[in-house]
This record gives sequence, structure tokens and C-alpha cells, in this order.
Amino acid sequence: MERILIKNLKEYKNKKVSISASVDVARNQGKMAFFDFRDRTGKVQGVVFGKPDILEIAKTLSPETVVRVIGVVNERPEKMRKKGIINGDIELEITDIKILSKAEPLPFDLDSNFNIETLLDYRPITMRREHDRAIFDIQHTIVQAYRTFLSDNGFIEFQAPKLVGGDAEGGAEVFKVEYFKDREVSLATSPQLYKQIMVGVFERVFAIGSTFRAEKSATSRHLTEYISLDAEFGFIADHLDVMRIKTNLMRYLVKEVSEKCSDQLKVLEIESPLIPSEEDIIPYMKLREAQNLIKEKTGIDKTNEPDLEPEDERFLCEYAYKKFKSDFIFITHYPVSKRPFYTMEDENDPGFTKSFDLLFRGVEISTGGQRVHDPKIMKEKMKEKNLNPEAFSFYLQAFKYGLPPHGGWGMGLERLTQKFCGVKNVKQASVFPRDINRIDTLLSSNKKSDKTDTNNSETLQSTKET
Amino acid sequence: MERILIKNLKEYKNKKVSISASVDVARNQGKMAFFDFRDRTGKVQGVVFGKPDILEIAKTLSPETVVRVIGVVNERPEKMRKKGIINGDIELEITDIKILSKAEPLPFDLDSNFNIETLLDYRPITMRREHDRAIFDIQHTIVQAYRTFLSDNGFIEFQAPKLVGGDAEGGAEVFKVEYFKDREVSLATSPQLYKQIMVGVFERVFAIGSTFRAEKSATSRHLTEYISLDAEFGFIADHLDVMRIKTNLMRYLVKEVSEKCSDQLKVLEIESPLIPSEEDIIPYMKLREAQNLIKEKTGIDKTNEPDLEPEDERFLCEYAYKKFKSDFIFITHYPVSKRPFYTMEDENDPGFTKSFDLLFRGVEISTGGQRVHDPKIMKEKMKEKNLNPEAFSFYLQAFKYGLPPHGGWGMGLERLTQKFCGVKNVKQASVFPRDINRIDTLLSSNKKSDKTDTNNSETLQSTKET
Repeated sequence: MERILIKNLKEYKNKKVSISASVDVARNQGKMAFFDFRDRTGKVQGVVFGKPDILEIAKTLSPETVVRVIGVVNERPEKMRKKGIINGDIELEITDIKILSKAEPLPFDLDSNFNIETLLDYRPITMRREHDRAIFDIQHTIVQAYRTFLSDNGFIEFQAPKLVGGDAEGGAEVFKVEYFKDREVSLATSPQLYKQIMVGVFERVFAIGSTFRAEKSATSRHLTEYISLDAEFGFIADHLDVMRIKTNLMRYLVKEVSEKCSDQLKVLEIESPLIPSEEDIIPYMKLREAQNLIKEKTGIDKTNEPDLEPEDERFLCEYAYKKFKSDFIFITHYPVSKRPFYTMEDENDPGFTKSFDLLFRGVEISTGGQRVHDPKIMKEKMKEKNLNPEAFSFYLQAFKYGLPPHGGWGMGLERLTQKFCGVKNVKQASVFPRDINRIDTLLSSNKKSDKTDTNNSETLQSTKET
Repeated sequence: MERILIKNLKEYKNKKVSISASVDVARNQGKMAFFDFRDRTGKVQGVVFGKPDILEIAKTLSPETVVRVIGVVNERPEKMRKKGIINGDIELEITDIKILSKAEPLPFDLDSNFNIETLLDYRPITMRREHDRAIFDIQHTIVQAYRTFLSDNGFIEFQAPKLVGGDAEGGAEVFKVEYFKDREVSLATSPQLYKQIMVGVFERVFAIGSTFRAEKSATSRHLTEYISLDAEFGFIADHLDVMRIKTNLMRYLVKEVSEKCSDQLKVLEIESPLIPSEEDIIPYMKLREAQNLIKEKTGIDKTNEPDLEPEDERFLCEYAYKKFKSDFIFITHYPVSKRPFYTMEDENDPGFTKSFDLLFRGVEISTGGQRVHDPKIMKEKMKEKNLNPEAFSFYLQAFKYGLPPHGGWGMGLERLTQKFCGVKNVKQASVFPRDINRIDTLLSSNKKSDKTDTNNSETLQSTKET
């Protein structure tokens, strides 16, 4: 018999059908057995009664066992119907069961609240929970929407390399790779330089891919491997043009997640983010304005700091939420000293850059701005950062032979997903998260003496962020 | 003035417009100057005459210089029109030019035929050629079509990790990464094990990402870093179910590239691939049948070989093209000895597997099949390959707690792109290719004494495959 997907069962009332599914819940009641079956499209209740041979098989069905079930789609009696639930008005009267893959008894109740270590130690099964699937359904939707929006706006996707010749940007800590013989190769910390080269080819490009940071931090904000959603495009006047397209993108992501993942948002008990409507850009202010605001409202003077701290980011997001009804806020004009060499300095605000961070629900999710496009200025900027332009000759070809004024951004997929979903730890928004202590399983514990900022052991009593 | 995209200029006849573009070609004719301007949407001819001050600027415009140009869109005189070319019936009478980014004189004529080394040494500018842009337009289209087809068929995209705990599959050569302290970490040679775990979560999944092979080959077929287009799904009867969905996918890719990239295919002087129509599966035969066919047709006996050689793949593709009017052919039933531990053995053909290679225009582009889903059999298969099941305990959780019968494939994006485009070397289909000798620039030549199979130095007189 042809397999029917569970979401389509309502079209087969009073008919005999075959489904393929996992046992989500099994309730053995002596002469009857009840099940929730789950396939990729939904759940349905199944029931066995009056068939002793089938009941015998049914009683052996532990949760997560994979089955093919044949049965009749019955309407439930009026008072047994569950409203607002998929297939709440039908059940499957089981006439045959075939076990495709028997599951051993689970080590714990999947509905428990796990701490992050248990959640990740048992990732292959904890991810099967409705709560965790909802997170990655939303991540899937974000990624597809990101591509659709940019493709529709004339951007071409390219595949940025991960093996690079050195730590080009001279900033973040890099992982070294043993390449052939003693050649020095690193894992890319960003596709930045390649994006700029590609602006010279296609004018508008984007890239989605793994990015690597050898940071010795095991906090709820850090991963050693994460997915960067990048874009870069030419013929801009300044960073505001970048922020304008970025705003339209974020608006599209919010719309798509709201429309396609309303069930998942319900499971996660979180609202769609607030974002200004069509005409407006996401609210923005200069770093110094933000610091003055913090000083004014809290009395804490950080006006000489070159960057924001986590509590500042939370403060500014709360401010934007109350003042502008926005879950997003741009902070612009970080000092030249804190930004990479390719960042454009503001000619009207010397010492500060045409760059931005985008904050979302209390955390920085994206960095971008206008870049230098003049090869002479670019070489000067490199020297100011103690980098040797000779080492960048491949990259500098793009500038030497004409590159339009341009800008763009990088955005962390896991942090973005985390904040859409309202979960506590960024590792909950990575299917197989890597940090200094873990690659699937915990790395050997007698090597854990590094000075790490570990707060992994907190329990996730509530998976919603507090 | 608002920027008008070049493809839209025909809507502005007799009007004054502003375009932003690169100089594609400059022809200085004394009292007049002609240009081809290029932006991301197309080309248009520009002309300066009767304006001495503008002509002075115009004469300094070297190719690739980036400009903003103001001018009037004129219809060309009847006999000057070029048919079949975008904007062949109009030209821009230039009234003002602003140089946004001046290009130095190019080191060579971009229309030359380069050997692969020159092509890659100057990648940031050689990629700007119409021919090279066509390749990556097609690659972009393939990637978007891959996602669209699978998303529409209920597959969820997930982000497979690249940092892995070891060479899990025990096969291909791996790159080692210096992780924190002396922890042993490698770069993933495939997302295979993660895909299978994810089948237990979402039933149907796909992944697109970088994959790494430390192969000491610098041939026209090899890259050390490539993009793998992966998919895996549950509830299959056997490998034929995988080949059926794979056929539908390839048909969709061919359709999308044909429809969206007809101009690019023209530039590359290549036809759309032939693939069987709606009802049919791509032609397939067992490895032994293929070997018998080769013996029968060529007299060369390879019936005891466990795999195909490149010339066999070319022979079989030519055969499929003539016999079935298909540029694609599946070869199935590779021996157990040549396939990874997770490959399902055919119960009706012991010693041989329910696996396939997909050949396309002479080369293997994809490998797939049905996988083992029973944890006991899986552990036995590991032991047969001298692997320790203990090392796979994380992965085996998915099997222990119920995994449906499943299968899938991996497919190399660069080879697929190469064969769609009919270019000679797979490196032409990677924006920034990596091999044993090159990461952007050639690696130090005094370290090139490795025993490598180098045929990189051949010229690409014709970029079409011979």
C-alpha cells in the first residue's frame, strides 16, 4: 500500500491507509493500546482494540521505534475531539503493524528539562523533541529566506573557501591546518576578502558557510565553528545604503518566519520579533550617542570605551524596544582602532568608521559597513594595522583594477536563530555545536585545565531566555 | 540622479539617465570615444562627441575603471543596430562622467586564452570575463535549484559541522587541525554520519557545504576543498527509491539551468544536458554489466576490477548518450570491499551493495545508495572494516533508538558545474580552487617536490572540453 503522510490523513476518513512513522508516545492499557505516531508532517493518535495478535505486537512498541502501520481513519466521537491540534478529530484504528526499526528503551524521558551537557551528549535523540525540531525548522526557514531575498535583489551566491593562506585579517584567533608538508594554512575566520573580490565580478554577492574562531571561550555566546551569512555589494553612497538593504532583509526574515513557522513559535512560546514597518530603517545611533544614553539613564560612564559590553547591548535593545517598538537596533561609528583595516573612516567624523553592529534582543548578531575601495588608502590602512600589503597582493588585484564603492555585512546564523527562538544558549541553535570542550562528545576531561570562561553547566530549567 | 540598471535602459529612450558601471571596452577615435559599459544586468554602448571637456575625461578611461555616467538614451540609426544583443538598438550619448575607481592598465587582454595557472594567478580579474561569469551564474542557479527542489519535497536543510573528532569513515585522507592543546581534530571528508543522525530527527534532510580531502593529486578532476551537495531520507524500500528522487532532482536542475541560464549556455557554447523525460529513471546498470559491456565493445577485460577507471566512465557516458539519449547514467552494485561500512549489502546479490555512482558527461559526479539502519549489522560492518564501534557511540545513538530504512547521496558541486558548462578543468568551476600546489597563489615552489600527478600546466586553448 502507498504511504500516506500523516498531515493528509484527514482526507482519508473511513478508509484504510498505510502510514510510516516513529512511535512518539505509547500507552498500554491492558486490552487496548494507544499511540501517538509521528512522521515529518505531523502526529496522529493510533489505537488497537479487539485484535489480540496485533495487541501483542503493539505492547512491544517502545517510544522511537519505527513502524509501518495499516489502519482505518476513524472520526473521533464528538466529546473526544481535541480542538486546535492537527488530526485532533481523527484517530487510526490499527489493523496491522510492521516494525521497521526497534528502539531500545530511552535513557530518560525526552520531555525532561536537561542541562546543556546532557542535551548535547544525547544530541541524536534530544533533537527529535518537538522543541528542538522547532528551532531547526526556524533555522531552515531563515536560511531559505536569506537566499530568496538576496537572489531576488540581484545577488549571486558564491562558495567562499575555508582553507586560507594565513590569518589575513590579523585579528581573531585562527586554527592552523596541517597542509601538505610544512605549508602554512589556516581556517577562514571570515569570507570578507573574497566577498570584496567578488563585488568586482558580480557587483552583488552573498555567501553562506562555516567560519572558524579559535577563541578560548566556552560561554553561552560562543562557538568555535559557526555559520556566517555574508553579503557584499557595490555602488553604495555610504554605510546607510548597507543598513537600508539590511533592514529590508531582516524585515523579510521576520515575515517569513512569522508566516511559515507560526506553529514552531508557539511550541517555543515566543512572539515574532518587532521591526519597523515598510518605510523606516531599523533605529540607529552612534556608539558615542549610545554611551551618552547609558550614562544618562544608568549613571555608569562608559563614554571612553571603544566598544559595547554585553550588558550595554541588553540595555540598548531594551531601550529600542520601549522607545521604537523594535527588537533590532543599529549602533554605528565604532572607532578606527576597533575595526579591521578595510573599514571606511567617516570623513566627517575622523577617528570613527562608517560601520555598524546590529543588535537583536540583547545581543550583537551582525557587523557591517562601508569598506575602503581605493587601493592607495587600503595599503595605508594595512600599514597602520601593522600588516604587510605584499601579503595581500592577490586581494589587492581587485582594487588595482577598479572596484566600486561597496559595503556589506556578516551575520551569525546561530545567534540569529537563538534570538528568534528565545533560547538561552547559542549551542541550542547549532545542530552539532563545537567549542573548546566539545566536538560531539566532551573532549578528554584531563585536558580541560585551560583558562576557559566556562558556564556550560547551567541547567536549562526554562529554555526561554530569562 | 537615481541609478538606472543597464538592462532597463530601453525603457528610457530619449531621456537623460544615470548609470553606474565598469568600462568593459574603450575605443578612442580622436574626436569621438566609444565604450561598452557593463553592470550586473548587462552592457550598453556609450559614445562621446562634440563635448571636448567630457572627451578629455573619456580618453583616460582604461578598461575596468568604475564610473557613473550621465547621458541620453538614443535609438541607433537603423543600419547601426545589432540584432540579438541586449541594448543592440540603443546607445548612451554621454553628457557627464564621474570616475569612481580608476583601473590601472590590465596586464593582458582579458579576452586571451590563458593557461590554468595564469587564469588562477589573476583570478580576481580573469573572473570578470563574460565566460567565467557565465560559469558561476550557472553554479548559483544549480545551488538555488538544488535547495528549491529539496525544500519543496519536504527536506530540511541543516548545517553539518566541518570540525570532526577524527577520520570517522576511515577512508579518504584527512587534514588535521591544531585544536586546543593536543586534541585530535580533523576536517570533515563528508557530512555522511551527521546526515544519518538527522534522518532520525527530520526524516528528510539536505546539507550544502565545504568538504576536505587531503589527496595528493593535482589533476583536472581534483580539489582539496570542494562543495558537497548532500541529501539523506528515510522510509525507502531500496537504492532505487534514492535513484528515483535523484533523477527528479537532476531533471529539475537541467530545467532550471536551461531556462534561467540560456544566455550563459550560449556564451559557453554548450547545449543543455539530455535527461530522460518525466516517467523514466536515469538509465542504470550494475558494475559487472558495465564491465561486460566494455569487454564486449572494446575487447578490454576489466571484469575483475572493483571500480571504474576514468576511461570507463567516459565510455559508459558515450554509450548512454547514444543508446538512451541521456547525458547521465547510474552504475550500481559496487563491491562491498570498495564501499564504506554504512553501505547496505544487496541480500539478493551478496558481496555487492545497493549503492550507485552517477556519471555525467564522462565523469562521476555523485555517489549514493541505501545505508544500513540496523545497529547490530552496523557494528558488524564496522568491525569488518577494522573500525571500532566504541569510537562511533555518538553516531550509533541514532540507530539504537530507532532509525528508518534510509539512503541518500553526496554530489560534487564543482564537477557538476564543470560538466554543465563543458569546461576542461574542475578548477575553472571553483571560484577560488585549492589543491596541493595552490591556495590563491602558488605555494612556495621549492616545496613542490612531492610526488604529485600534475597536469595543471596544460593550456586552455579551448575552454570547451575536447
